[in-house]
Parts: sequence; structure tokens; C-alpha cells
Amino acid sequence: MSELSSPLSTLTAAFDADARAAVYRAIQTRRDVRRFRPEAVTDDALRRVLDAAHHAPSVGYMQPWSFIVVRSPETRRRVLDLYERERQAAACFYDEPRRSAYLAFKLQGILDAPINICVTCDPTRGGEVLGRNSMPETDVYSTCLAVQNLWLAARAEGLGVGWVSILKSAWLREILGIPPHVIPVAYLCLGVPERFDERPMLESAGWRERLPLDAVICDERWQALPAGSDR
Amino acid sequence: MSELSSPLSTLTAAFDADARAAVYRAIQTRRDVRRFRPEAVTDDALRRVLDAAHHAPSVGYMQPWSFIVVRSPETRRRVLDLYERERQAAACFYDEPRRSAYLAFKLQGILDAPINICVTCDPTRGGEVLGRNSMPETDVYSTCLAVQNLWLAARAEGLGVGWVSILKSAWLREILGIPPHVIPVAYLCLGVPERFDERPMLESAGWRERLPLDAVICDERWQALPAGSDR
Repeated sequence: MSELSSPLSTLTAAFDADARAAVYRAIQTRRDVRRFRPEAVTDDALRRVLDAAHHAPSVGYMQPWSFIVVRSPETRRRVLDLYERERQAAACFYDEPRRSAYLAFKLQGILDAPINICVTCDPTRGGEVLGRNSMPETDVYSTCLAVQNLWLAARAEGLGVGWVSILKSAWLREILGIPPHVIPVAYLCLGVPERFDERPMLESAGWRERLPLDAVICDERWQALPAGSDR
Repeated sequence: MSELSSPLSTLTAAFDADARAAVYRAIQTRRDVRRFRPEAVTDDALRRVLDAAHHAPSVGYMQPWSFIVVRSPETRRRVLDLYERERQAAACFYDEPRRSAYLAFKLQGILDAPINICVTCDPTRGGEVLGRNSMPETDVYSTCLAVQNLWLAARAEGLGVGWVSILKSAWLREILGIPPHVIPVAYLCLGVPERFDERPMLESAGWRERLPLDAVICDERWQALPAGSDR
């Protein structure tokens, strides 16, 4: 991490080929991790990934995020109970054989990971925020950018992150003492992964495929996906 | 970029200190760029940053994003006109001296940058999406994660990105032919920057300061910002 102690002016120079490749490697080998080893996450590593998140861009420099670091097994058991209810609720909307496949997936590591992090967005932070008059939802967008910084920094640290989206916001607020006006944007599990899979789990399980890059690039104006590229 | 042609299994190994530092460097020296040089962005570089965006995590592997690449000067002039209207509208909500300071900021590089990219989210893509039953807004969240991948990849390429949020979604839809159900999440300017500033512009201009990291970290339960840390 020697570069981090260099003057910032040095850091703003061009990336050489190895440094560029490292950034792409973090992006391309990042995975949604649901299987963790029991090892602890060091306080230093945790602080570095949170600092990376805190360096995300935000509308009007609003920095609307907070990071609730949850280690308490009791709290995590309550979140897991909520997850289980939501998982069953979501299963009601699938028919077989998709339903059984869905219920067989391991989609969370709430108790396995040593640390959970709830990333919240406070829409009231900072008063009248520059650049947010036309699209007020850019506060939540900024918070998501922080999540991706955290995720990539964790990958570089050899740490895995899994995003648990099968949770009800109102209940999560109650469990973590989040006031009604604050949005729990992401609930993350952080820890040492069993491994980084070569492909996303839903791809290797045959659930869904990666779209061809050309299918999601539009020239000058919006275009629908080419027929057959979305299955 | 030699690493990118290695087998993926090699890539999933641990990051060494230099590779880790490169990821943090991209995160910490990324800036919202509004001043661009006239040089073109190569097709290869553009494709790499879009591919990085396309490798973002998405709820249920939904990949709800599309990337509208806009080069047409006529289209960009229409977007700039929209920006100017929105900028004046937003100025109505400031009193002096904040109002003059706001109007003096250069907040976009729509015509200066050779490429504009509108990143959209299609909430209908992929049918019944795994993990999206409880929090349907995770489609937009996923799209934001793609934006941050794009931003960091661009930084590693020596390219600057600026997010223009002073735009009205309904008008932007009309200009770019985006259907009503598709959300224009981000409007980005991409090009060779005049420079990467050492600090965010709004910080060096004295508009707002970076919050202390400890102010945004909460232990076990949500906590408000400490008094005085938000000005």
C-alpha cells in the first residue's frame, strides 16, 4: 500500500499497464459472495473498505451515506429471520421447477460472515444540495456508488461481499433503529470468502446468462434489447 | 493489460500490494470531471469502460442497464439547453451569496467531452427477477453500481467522467427516445480530462467539506451525524 502514502499529485498521474489491469481485475473478478470462512476481518481492513466507500462521488458532495457495522449475533439472527420470511414470500411468485431451484439457492451469509454492514441514505443531510433539484433520487444513487467502491476495495483486500436484498425495509429499520426518513439501501455481508467463483452463481447454475455487451450498447438513441438476447 | 488474457483462475488469486494499491488509487483519485481536452476517446477504451460497467453486480443477474452513447453535436446541444434551463430553475432556491457562487460553477462538459453516455434502467427486463420481490428499487441500485464501475475503469484509462444531474428526466427521455417505463439514471460526459484535481471541486471551492469517516460509521445501530460535523 506504499502508493497511498505518496503525495496525491503523484497519484493523479497516469496509470501504468499493471495498475490499469489491477482495476479491471477487481471489477471482473468481484463476486456476490454467500459462503464465508470463520476468520475475522481486521479492523484496519474494515476501515480501509469503509474509507473507500466514503470516497464515492455524491451529488453536491452530499455524502448521504452511513455505514452501520453489525456484529451482534442477536441482531444478525433477527435479520436472518426476516430474510427467511421474505424468501418464503418471494417463492410464492414462482412455479415449479423454478420455485424449488430458487429455494435451493444459498443467497445470504448473514451469520457466516463476521460482519454485516447496512448502508443507509439520509435524504435530509446537507440541506439544499447542489445538483439535486431536478433529480432528488440522486441521493440514493450516490449511496449505491459508495456500495460499489466498498465492494471493489473488499475484492482487492481478498474479502468477499454479498448483498442481501431479500429483506423488508420497514422491518430492517425497526431492527437497526433506522428512522423512517432514512433509507436502508444495502444490507451487506463482509468476510473472508470460501473462494471467488469464476462466474456469477446464477450464471453457473443456469438461472440466467450474461447479456452480450453489444446488446446493452445503444447508438445515439435508446434501443430495446435485440430479440432473443434476454431469456 | 496482460493479466486480462490470463485464465480467470489466476485472476481469482489474492491481490498483491501493488495491485491492491492500484484499486485504492482509482477510488481515491477519481474525480467528477467537467473540463475536457479535445482529444478523442478510442473505440477500444470506450468498449473497455462499458464492459467494466456491464460487469457490475445486479439483482438476480438482471443486468437492467443500457448505455446510450451520444456523439451527435445536435443531440448534445439539446441536452445542454435542458441543462441551462434546469440550472436557472435550481438557482431560484438559493439566496445570495450562495446563488452567484452556484451559477459561477462549471458543472458540465456536455459539448467539451467527445462522448456523452446516458445509462438507463429497464425495470421490466428479465421478467420475474430473483431477489427483487422485497425491494423492487434494486434494479436502479444495480444500474448505479454499473456507473461506478464505468467511472473507476475510466480513471484507470486516464479518462474523466462527469455526472450531469441537472436535467429533467421527462425531457431527457424525449431527446434520446427513451420509453416512459425506462429510467434515465445517469447522464455522463466522458473524455480526456484537462487534469484530475487533487480534491473535489466543491471542497476546494469551500462549498462543502468531506465528513470525517468516523461520523458516518455507526456501531450496531443507526446513529445521527455528530453535532457540527455536517455544515
